[in-house]
Order: sequence, then structure tokens, then C-alpha cells
Amino acid sequence: MRADIDRLMTARDLQAIVVTGGEHPNTPRRYLSNGLDIHNGMTVKKRGSAPVLIVGGMEMEEAAKAGLPIVTYMDLDWIKLIQEADGDRAKAFVLLWGRLIEKLAIPPGRIGLYGVGDLNVWIERVPQLNAAYPDHPIVGDASDVTLFDEAFLTKDEDELRVIREVAAKTSAVQQVTWDYISGHRAEGEVVVKPDGSPLTIGDVKRFVRRALLDRGLEDTDMIFAQGRDAGFPHSRGEEAMALRQGVPIVFDLFPRQIGGGYFHDTTRTWCIGHAPEKVQAIYNQVMTAFQIAVDHYAEPGQPTHSMQEAVLDYFESQGHPTQRTQPNSTNGYVHSLGHGIGLNIHESPSISHLRKDDIFQKGNIITIEPGLYYPEEGIGVRVEDSFIIDHDGNLVSITDFHKELVLPLKG
Amino acid sequence: MRADIDRLMTARDLQAIVVTGGEHPNTPRRYLSNGLDIHNGMTVKKRGSAPVLIVGGMEMEEAAKAGLPIVTYMDLDWIKLIQEADGDRAKAFVLLWGRLIEKLAIPPGRIGLYGVGDLNVWIERVPQLNAAYPDHPIVGDASDVTLFDEAFLTKDEDELRVIREVAAKTSAVQQVTWDYISGHRAEGEVVVKPDGSPLTIGDVKRFVRRALLDRGLEDTDMIFAQGRDAGFPHSRGEEAMALRQGVPIVFDLFPRQIGGGYFHDTTRTWCIGHAPEKVQAIYNQVMTAFQIAVDHYAEPGQPTHSMQEAVLDYFESQGHPTQRTQPNSTNGYVHSLGHGIGLNIHESPSISHLRKDDIFQKGNIITIEPGLYYPEEGIGVRVEDSFIIDHDGNLVSITDFHKELVLPLKG
Repeated sequence: MRADIDRLMTARDLQAIVVTGGEHPNTPRRYLSNGLDIHNGMTVKKRGSAPVLIVGGMEMEEAAKAGLPIVTYMDLDWIKLIQEADGDRAKAFVLLWGRLIEKLAIPPGRIGLYGVGDLNVWIERVPQLNAAYPDHPIVGDASDVTLFDEAFLTKDEDELRVIREVAAKTSAVQQVTWDYISGHRAEGEVVVKPDGSPLTIGDVKRFVRRALLDRGLEDTDMIFAQGRDAGFPHSRGEEAMALRQGVPIVFDLFPRQIGGGYFHDTTRTWCIGHAPEKVQAIYNQVMTAFQIAVDHYAEPGQPTHSMQEAVLDYFESQGHPTQRTQPNSTNGYVHSLGHGIGLNIHESPSISHLRKDDIFQKGNIITIEPGLYYPEEGIGVRVEDSFIIDHDGNLVSITDFHKELVLPLKG
Repeated sequence: MRADIDRLMTARDLQAIVVTGGEHPNTPRRYLSNGLDIHNGMTVKKRGSAPVLIVGGMEMEEAAKAGLPIVTYMDLDWIKLIQEADGDRAKAFVLLWGRLIEKLAIPPGRIGLYGVGDLNVWIERVPQLNAAYPDHPIVGDASDVTLFDEAFLTKDEDELRVIREVAAKTSAVQQVTWDYISGHRAEGEVVVKPDGSPLTIGDVKRFVRRALLDRGLEDTDMIFAQGRDAGFPHSRGEEAMALRQGVPIVFDLFPRQIGGGYFHDTTRTWCIGHAPEKVQAIYNQVMTAFQIAVDHYAEPGQPTHSMQEAVLDYFESQGHPTQRTQPNSTNGYVHSLGHGIGLNIHESPSISHLRKDDIFQKGNIITIEPGLYYPEEGIGVRVEDSFIIDHDGNLVSITDFHKELVLPLKG
């Protein structure tokens, strides 16, 4: 949680953290800037003080919405520094850094550099800054769980409220999408629009995006993949493809608040009209795996890899290749069981047999998403909900939409 | 253009460029990857060879759409390397880099690192890689115009075709937005919906986003700012604010192709119903400045700063503070005249009196966007089109929407 950041800084012996952003909005910066995303500047936090937004003068009105102290590039004499540096903006930035340290009175010590930036710029810049300001060495953080990964692990009450809202809206979109498809008819195996032309994946995606927008959410490249494409877990699907009856469709929807913000992540598998026996059998196994995973959760502190191992044990017992038995296979259970979500679509903890150190904690938001894939047979099935581990340590689903496989046509 | 990249690499003495991406899609990576955006991996290009996509196994289907060679993390034995490194993924990445150099047969020499990444990770990682592979030193590029900035300066015919399509669609959205507002009525000064409730900025933005989506475009935080907010050039506007007659509205729309792709950038200023004399006078001056800018263009090779100086001369002659006379002012002409656009919303060249080295070139796509701002008087005016400098060296507008100020209500 945000409240942990000073403690996390102390543990890493950091006097200050600088989180870049500029034209690369990123979640550490948003998190530190009270949810505000400004396409300019940096956010700087001294240990024990509130974060300060460093922005261009034109961003002041927008920046004020964060309710945090603001220092502009003008306050740091940016134009003068460019002139002092004879137009060399790289030199001017080095001078600016010194002004920043002065203005914010950052005590001597380590400065942690976070955020996202153009690598070609920063791998030149950091050595220059370290040479110019040896009392304020800039350090990175390439550990498996960085300072922000740790902070993001647990969500506070304000965040949980927003997360539940995004979840409810996302499930509403799953419902209206189900209803939208169901309201069509088929000609033979092809689902068609009233005028007889095929209902395509592109049509469905446009419908979903509009439904999301109407609820203040934005799509982040949803998966709506049919048949063989469903057999490749990250295939987004072909926009031109017509929807067909009796073929598995994997619909993985992971929208976030418009402009950036909290995610929800949920997957359903649908067969329009009817499901072939083989697909129904595979679906039943994935649903069983899902229940095994949920039942396996015990309490905060439990290692996450044990949940995945329960699912691996089950799928392997059913004869499927898995990531554990055949890491290179594109058939069977080819991915891990879940991951944290928040401002990012992928956060800690992971639920993977390779991640031995991750544990479940109160305040986690995680996905559980078993699946089976046989692309050459035109089969892909995945079922996913997002969950909270609440303040009592209980695992509670926040995805409120049914898990029916067969989507009837009523058009 | 893409065709220039080998020449640009030779000029910078680079044997190869590595463009990161992963969960940070970025335009250098998209550009090098034939327009494909994969939320995973890196793209690597040896001098004289086609780019190679380095992706996780699950991304192969999507990656294949680029029509470029693919190497997966499995091909580089990623899982084995993690085991060799006893689970230390940072160490494993260093080993992976060596496998990559081997697999692609990158000759000894400088490797340029580009793209966008988590700074906390890469400022630790680059020194480790340089220590492990001293024959392949990794270098950055912090010049004012980097390798990709140079490549982006000029667009090839394929890009121009797409850019014109995005322009046409954006102007269609400007038109339907104008019609949408015009189709309402007012109660007193407030524009209202059929049920009598106010038409808000939020309503208009939702309308615009839907209109963009229907045309395969996505909003990237448009500005629809009224009154005092219009006086702050980067104020996005208040969603809850009702539209009012006789007050300037700055509508700055800079959408791109859905999922990332080429931008268009255009601004109109509207007064609903009628325009106060002061606003009309300011508007006329901005329109004059716009024409002065366009008329000032002479030919490829011309320094861009001269166009801004012509506009500064004019606005200063009309008594307005400018960035040149009062750099800290929030009144008057407070920004530069324009910038390149492409896959990024801000590219070279700049049209600024501070950028003495930028020139106009055939194949440029640029904006021209003069404006005047007096927020304490509730006034902001900006007019912007995007232009191409075509293969004959002519400056040609690609924004096809009228510049009427007064938006009549016909509802």
C-alpha cells in the first residue's frame, strides 16, 4: 500500500525516489501522484515527505488535481539552464537535477530511480548525473520484487473500492456481450446479422469497446479468439472471422479505467448454439481445475506455487502435457495459474510452479485462470475470475458473471 | 524512413540495435517490427539484416503477422538459463543476452539500446551486460535527434497512405461532433439535451470517443475545454461542466489508430450560438497568424524557427506577451508553433524559436497551431491543422474541416 512506501524506502536505504514519466505514463508514477497521469515531468518523494510533482508550466492546472506540492521547470530555471548549457539539453538536464536536489533539500544518500523512460536517453544520462552529484548516487532496483512491486502487492480500502467498481462494470459488459451475440440467428453454421451478412469478431469487439466506453472503461487489446486461434492463448483473434456455431471462443477481457487506472481481468469460453462432446469434456476439466484451485487456498502466508501444483497434478492425471512436464509444448496446460492485478495487468504475486517465494497476502488482488489448448484440434478453453484476499484472509471472487459454456441463439 | 535505418546505424557506428518493449509498447519497436505491437520481448536488428522479433513462445502466432524472422525465449533456452542461474532472473537475463548475440551472429562492436523500459531494471542491467560482454558494448543515444527521431522525420509512401486515412477519419469526427452539438437547443445560456438536462463536456467526449471507435481510432486524452479552462492550453476540460453559449471552447483532438499506430492532430475553437466581440477579435488574430505561418513556408531545407519567428513578430505587434518576450507568462502566445507527428504525438521537427537546427524536409508531417490565451478573461483560442511536405516540396494540409468559430444551435 502507499502507506508502506517510507518503510520500503528505509529498507532499501533510499533518501529519495525519483519516478520518471513524461510521454511514458507508468503505474509507479500514477501511484505516487495520487492517481494523476501527466504526460510530462517526474514525481519525486523524499523519505518521510509527501511526493512532489515536477512538471512543465503548462501542466500546472492538471497537476493541481493531485493535491500534492508542485514544482515547475520554470521554478528550477529550466530556460536559463538551457542557455547556460549553450543549448545542450543533455547538459541542461544535469544542471536541472542539481537544482532539484537543492530545491527539495534532499539529504546526501541514495536516490532510487523508477518509472519508465527512453533507455537510449537514460543509460547515457545516469552516469552523467552520478559523476556530477557523487553525494546522491542513483541506484536501480532489478530485484524480482521491486519497491513498487512490494507496494502494489496489497491494496488499501480506497483502491479496493475502485477495483470492485471496475469488476462490476466489466461483468456487466460480459453480460451485454453474451446478450448481443445471443440476439442473433444463424444461417447454417455461421452467425449472421439481420441483413444476412456474417457477424464477425470485429463486430463483437466494436460492440464490447462501446459497452466499455459507456461505463468509463477502456479496452486494452481484448482476446476474442475462435477455433484454432483459441488454441493459442495470446492470439487476439481475427477481426474478419465470422462467428460460427459449435466452435470454442475464448473471450479474455482485461479493461481498465479510461486513461489508465485499475484493471479487471476475466475470461469466459463460449460455444455458440451447441458444444461438441470433446469441447464439453475439456471444459468440464478446466472448470474442475478452477474449483481445485479455489479450494486449495488456505490462508495468508501460504505459498502460491502450491495452488498451481494442485492444478498441475490434476491436469497431468488427466493425461495433458503441462508447463511442468513439457515446458516447450503448445498443447495442454501451457501457462501459469494466475497473477496479481491492480494498476498493472500483471503484478506480483505470481501463481506459478517456478515462483517459490511468492505468498498469498491480505489485500492481494489476483486472477485464477486455468486453461487447456489443442490448436490443431481447433480447441482452446480458459476460465478466469479475479479475486480479493480480504481483511479476514478469505479468497473472494469479484467477477460476477456466469460460467455457462453454450451460448444459445435466440435471434 | 525505415529504408534509412542501416545508413543511420553506420553513421552511429552500431553493429546492431536492440529495441526493448515488453509491457511498454513503444514506437521505435513498433516501427522496426512492421507495425506490430507485442507486449513482450525485444526486436533486434543487425546492420544490413532484417529485424528479428524476440518473443515468448505464447506470442508466436501474433508475432508471425509481422512477416519478420522470430526467435523465441525457448529457442534461447530461457528456462534452462533460469535454472543455471539458480532462479536469479537478473543473472539469467545476462546469460540470455549472450545466447542472443551468438544466435544472431552479431559481430563485435557497439550495440545501440533503444525502446522503453523500467529504468530501475535497466540501469542495473546495462552495467552487468557490459561487464559480461566487453566486445559488444551497449551504448545509448541522448542526442537531440536520436536514430529513431531521424528515421521518423520523413515518412514513406506506405506511411503517408495510412496517415491520410487517419486524417480523413479524424475530420469526419470533427464534423459529426459539430453536428451533434448543433443538434441541441439552449435554455438560457446552457446547452441542454432533449430532456432539459445540461449537455456536458463529458457527454461530448463520450460521443467523440464512440465516433472515433466506429472509425477504428482511439482517443488519447482529447482536450475539450471551455472558458477559463480553454485559457490553459493543456487543460483537458471538466467532464461535469455544462456547455454554454458565447464562451470559447478549445477542442484539440489527436487520436491514433486503435491499439497504437499513426496519429492525427487538429484543434478547433468554437463559440456556441454567438461569439463575444473580444473573442471574435482574438480569433481573427489567430487565423491571421495561421495564414502567416502557412505563407511563410518556402521550401525543403528552410529552418523551422523562421516560421515561428514570423508568428511571434505578428503576435507581439498586436500587443500580446509571447514565449520570446515573456517566457514565464501564462497570458498571450504561450507555446511553440508546431511539431512533427507520426507514430508519436510529438516528433521532430519542432517549430520553435529555441530550436535553431530543425529544418523542413520532404516527407515531414507537421502541425501548425498558433493560439492566444487569457484565462482570467475566460479566453483561449487555438487553431491547428496537420500538414504534409510532399514529394514536390509543397506544404499541403491534410486536415479537411472548416474553421468556423460560431457553432449555431438548431435543436
